[in-house]
Amino acid sequence: MGRVSVHRPVLKISSGRRVLRPDTLAAEEPLEIRLGGAALTVTMRTPGHDIELAHGFLLTEGVITNLEDVHNARYCAGAEVDGVNTYNVLDLQLAPGVAPPDTSVTRNFYTTSSCGVCGKAALDAVKLATRFPPASAPCPVTPELLLSLPDKLRTQQRVFATTGGLHGAGLYRSDGSMIAVREDVGRHNAVDKVLGAALLANEIPLSDSILMVSGRASFELVQKAAMAGVPILAAVSAPSSLAVELAEEQGMTLAGFVRGESMNVYTGAARIKS
Amino acid sequence: MGRVSVHRPVLKISSGRRVLRPDTLAAEEPLEIRLGGAALTVTMRTPGHDIELAHGFLLTEGVITNLEDVHNARYCAGAEVDGVNTYNVLDLQLAPGVAPPDTSVTRNFYTTSSCGVCGKAALDAVKLATRFPPASAPCPVTPELLLSLPDKLRTQQRVFATTGGLHGAGLYRSDGSMIAVREDVGRHNAVDKVLGAALLANEIPLSDSILMVSGRASFELVQKAAMAGVPILAAVSAPSSLAVELAEEQGMTLAGFVRGESMNVYTGAARIKS
Repeated sequence: MGRVSVHRPVLKISSGRRVLRPDTLAAEEPLEIRLGGAALTVTMRTPGHDIELAHGFLLTEGVITNLEDVHNARYCAGAEVDGVNTYNVLDLQLAPGVAPPDTSVTRNFYTTSSCGVCGKAALDAVKLATRFPPASAPCPVTPELLLSLPDKLRTQQRVFATTGGLHGAGLYRSDGSMIAVREDVGRHNAVDKVLGAALLANEIPLSDSILMVSGRASFELVQKAAMAGVPILAAVSAPSSLAVELAEEQGMTLAGFVRGESMNVYTGAARIKS
Repeated sequence: MGRVSVHRPVLKISSGRRVLRPDTLAAEEPLEIRLGGAALTVTMRTPGHDIELAHGFLLTEGVITNLEDVHNARYCAGAEVDGVNTYNVLDLQLAPGVAPPDTSVTRNFYTTSSCGVCGKAALDAVKLATRFPPASAPCPVTPELLLSLPDKLRTQQRVFATTGGLHGAGLYRSDGSMIAVREDVGRHNAVDKVLGAALLANEIPLSDSILMVSGRASFELVQKAAMAGVPILAAVSAPSSLAVELAEEQGMTLAGFVRGESMNVYTGAARIKS
């Protein structure tokens, strides 16, 4: 698994006893994404699938919509420590005619110079930005299929099993077949990785898919799903208020607390067959 | 609790039965932090304790070290939707002589124009930045005290109990007494809120304290603790590799999987009395 996990000794204190034993940790390293040589963002991620991560990030930020929009992607040759490439700087060249993103602080919430940042402004920004509105995707599924996904995801999360320290994201078709499963210390990175994998496989828009995540459903994760045209987001834990509002606004199905034999459906229940 | 939680109907599907019932969600709204009228950052947070959040953010970004560094903080009067203040834009004026932060993308990792972003650069950046090195704080604690903190934190997390959707952070002294407990949809925000509360109470540096968090320990959380001089970070779940490296570099005690009768001590075991 290379740098996906790291071994270290740990002192385990249990019921008063102290034992020094080996432990496996989820790897975390900074990744700098550049566009045409200029720094765009730095994210703390688990190394691996970085090309997918960068494509997924650009997709969900509204910069690209298919793989032709990126001319090439490569690790920066000069990014070395002690003569060894860190593989922590990735430089992408956009294809001619593809506009680079606006990198101002308020890009996600403003289109005017108005002073009123609020949930509604955030919802409106996504509505304007997505080129693949999930509302138009039928994607009917059974409750049984959704309830089977957390176990599937857990089984396919290889590194979590050894470290307990990674978020998982899985993309599945409505027949339950897997498109991609990825893990990361950052849950937004895990989602960018699966969406980037789908983009590289020419599967955008993901109009017949379910995005299953191991943790909670935040506004940011619903936003990423909406930007890729995913009609169903399922989470093992709770959604936030703004996640539910955005899912409703986008015509997405949002299910939370998907565990064992039950789940909560917050929006888009019509896709869930009885 | 006002906007801390939001009520919505939810369709619960359980063992084939469908019931529509009321549900409570953790509130999530964007907060824009401005310095002298200019946008600095937008974070998705649970409303409440915003002044603390902004102070904690500026403390852990290395901009301020005590409450005299901020001249005043107030909600932007023009930040209105339909004539009602959103309370989502906070404007802070730094005191004369306090330098505003460098807002370039790579500020956290570079001090030179070198191409090599890596874990070591990230560690070095924190080492240079903190004015309260945790290494020099004695702060001896018993294993029993650390093991008592997850239950304490959970009991004091009021909104989690109703929504299951919030991260918690608690600051405790080495005798177990509480300094502050805060909740947020973002775990970095929960930590900024408790550290900001400590700053407003004139308790920085926190050389006799333990920061207890409900989830995992990432690089970012260790960094925030180090910037406030906190010598012990305890987490209910796993740490990442870079979190452990930074804790070691800073002379901090890092404990993970603090649950029931046992915990893993990754660094700084000398502070834990036998």
